[in-house]
Amino acid sequence: MNDWKNILIFGMGLMGGSLSLAIKKKFPNARVTGVVRSENSKKTIQKKNISHDVLTESEFYQTKTFSDFDFVVFSTPVKSVIETILKLPKIGTTVYTDLGSTKETILTAVNSHFDTAHQYISSHPMCGSEHSGPEAAKEDLYQDKLCIVTKPEKAKRETVDLVRNFWETIGSWTLEMGEKEHDETLSYLSHLPHILSTLLVNTAIANPVAKKQIEESTKPITGGGFRDMSRIAGSNPEMWLSIFEENRSYVFNSLSDYKSALEEVIEIFNPDNRSLDLEKIKAIWEKSILAKEIIQKNK
Amino acid sequence: MNDWKNILIFGMGLMGGSLSLAIKKKFPNARVTGVVRSENSKKTIQKKNISHDVLTESEFYQTKTFSDFDFVVFSTPVKSVIETILKLPKIGTTVYTDLGSTKETILTAVNSHFDTAHQYISSHPMCGSEHSGPEAAKEDLYQDKLCIVTKPEKAKRETVDLVRNFWETIGSWTLEMGEKEHDETLSYLSHLPHILSTLLVNTAIANPVAKKQIEESTKPITGGGFRDMSRIAGSNPEMWLSIFEENRSYVFNSLSDYKSALEEVIEIFNPDNRSLDLEKIKAIWEKSILAKEIIQKNK
Repeated sequence: MNDWKNILIFGMGLMGGSLSLAIKKKFPNARVTGVVRSENSKKTIQKKNISHDVLTESEFYQTKTFSDFDFVVFSTPVKSVIETILKLPKIGTTVYTDLGSTKETILTAVNSHFDTAHQYISSHPMCGSEHSGPEAAKEDLYQDKLCIVTKPEKAKRETVDLVRNFWETIGSWTLEMGEKEHDETLSYLSHLPHILSTLLVNTAIANPVAKKQIEESTKPITGGGFRDMSRIAGSNPEMWLSIFEENRSYVFNSLSDYKSALEEVIEIFNPDNRSLDLEKIKAIWEKSILAKEIIQKNK
Repeated sequence: MNDWKNILIFGMGLMGGSLSLAIKKKFPNARVTGVVRSENSKKTIQKKNISHDVLTESEFYQTKTFSDFDFVVFSTPVKSVIETILKLPKIGTTVYTDLGSTKETILTAVNSHFDTAHQYISSHPMCGSEHSGPEAAKEDLYQDKLCIVTKPEKAKRETVDLVRNFWETIGSWTLEMGEKEHDETLSYLSHLPHILSTLLVNTAIANPVAKKQIEESTKPITGGGFRDMSRIAGSNPEMWLSIFEENRSYVFNSLSDYKSALEEVIEIFNPDNRSLDLEKIKAIWEKSILAKEIIQKNK
C-alpha cells in the first residue's frame, strides 16, 4: 500500500472531484490539495468539502511547487496536461499521473520533457458520465471501473506498480497498454460509438415523417433500443472536441471501417437487387453475436 | 371497458405469452385460449399456467373457429399473420388485431381480404426484449409501453376505440398512426439503430489492435458507452430478418441517410484537411443535443 501523505489533484471537475472524495475515504492518512481555475469552483469544493485544501492555479504557482507533493494527478483537458508537463521538475521523488482520455500526445510530451529515469505514468480511468463539474462528484465513480495505465519509455518500472496499486486501492481494476494501442483501441470502443450515437439522433430527426410523428406525440415514441443507442449522443462537447483533436487519425480510420461495413449492408438492401439476401444479413448478425461474446467475455 | 369473455391469442411466444398473463390479471372475467405450434410449447404454457386453455394449431383448426371468440390477437411473425388473415370470416362480431412490427404488408392483406366494413385493427406494442419464447413471458411486459394502432381503411372507427381501450387497460399507452408513417418512422427509430449496433460490434472486433487488447484482458475493457451501443447488436435474428423483408425500402432509405451523415463526419476527420474543423463537429454535436430533447420530450 502506498503511504503518500500529500496528494495534489490539478483540476477538480467531475473526475478530479470524485477522485478526491475516493482518496479521502481509501487513504485516510493522506491530505488532498485541489487546484481549480476559478474562485467559483473553489467555493464549490470548499462548501462540499471535496478536498482538504483548495487553491486557484495562481495561488498554487505562487505558494507551492509540485515537489511539495508525493503524488500529483492531472485532471484537466489533455492540451492543458501537456502544457503543465513542461513545468514539471525533472528530478525528485514525486510520482505523476494524469486522467487523459488519449495517450499518444501526452506520452510524446513526457518523453521529450524528461531526460532521465522519471516517475510519470499516464492513466485513463474509464468512468465517463453524462454529468460534469465538481457538483456531480461522487465517491464511487471509480469503483469497479477499468483504469488503463501507460508507461513512458524512461519511466521507472516500479512506478507503474505504485500507480496501479493506487488505482486498485481506489477500487478500480487496471490494465497496462502502450500509447498507440490505447488510442487505436479506444477509437473503436469509445470514440466511434459516441459519433455513431450522435449521428443516429441527427438522422432520425432529419426524416420529416419520423419528425412529425415524434412532434405529434405527447410522450417519447422511441423504444429501449433507440434510448440506449442515443444515450451518449452529443454528450460533453468540450471533452469530445479535445479527444477528437488528439486522436484524429485513429478516429478517421474507425469511421472509415464503419462506413465499409455500412456500405455492405446498404448494398444488401439496395432495391435494384431482386430479393433481400437474408443469408448475408444472417451472417452479419451471427458475426456480431460472436463478437459480442468475445468483447463482453461471455465465452 | 371491454366485456370480452373469450379471447384467443394465436402464437404464444414472449409477446403472446406475456399478453396472456396481462389479460388474466387485467380482465379477470375473460377466458384466454392460446394457440401454439408445437406440443412442447403447449406443455410450457400449461406448466407455467400462462393461459386458461391451450391448443396446437391443428387442434384449433379441427375444433374451433375464429368466430368462437370476441377478440383474437395474432402474435406470430408478420408473414404468418398475413397467411392467417386470408382464413378469417369476412363477417361477424369478432374483433381482430396483431402485434406485427411492420404494418404496410399486413394492411394490404387486410384491405384486400375484407370487402365490407370490418373489425380488424393492427397493433404494434413497442416492448421488445433480448429474450424470446413463452419461458420469458412476464405479466408487466406491456406496462407503460407505447402501442401503436393502425386502422385499415374499411375498419370501423369504433373498433379503433375498442382496441385502444384494450391496450390501455393492459397498461400501455396508445397512438394511432397510418401504415406508411408507421413503417417509415420505425425504420429510423428502431430498425436503423439495430443495424448500427450490430455493425459497431463487427467493426470493433475486426480491428486487430482492438481485438488483441480485448482478448488479452480477463475482463471486458469496454465502457458504458460501448455497452449501451452494443446491447441490441445481433438480437433476435429471426424476428429481424422478417422485419427487414417487410420493410426493406424504408430501411434502405434510413441506412442511406445515415451514410450521408457519416460521410460528412469522415470528411471532417480526413487527414488531407490541414486542421480538424472543430466548429463543424460542434455544430453536429449541438444539433444532436437539440434533436435528443425533441425526441425524448425534454423540452
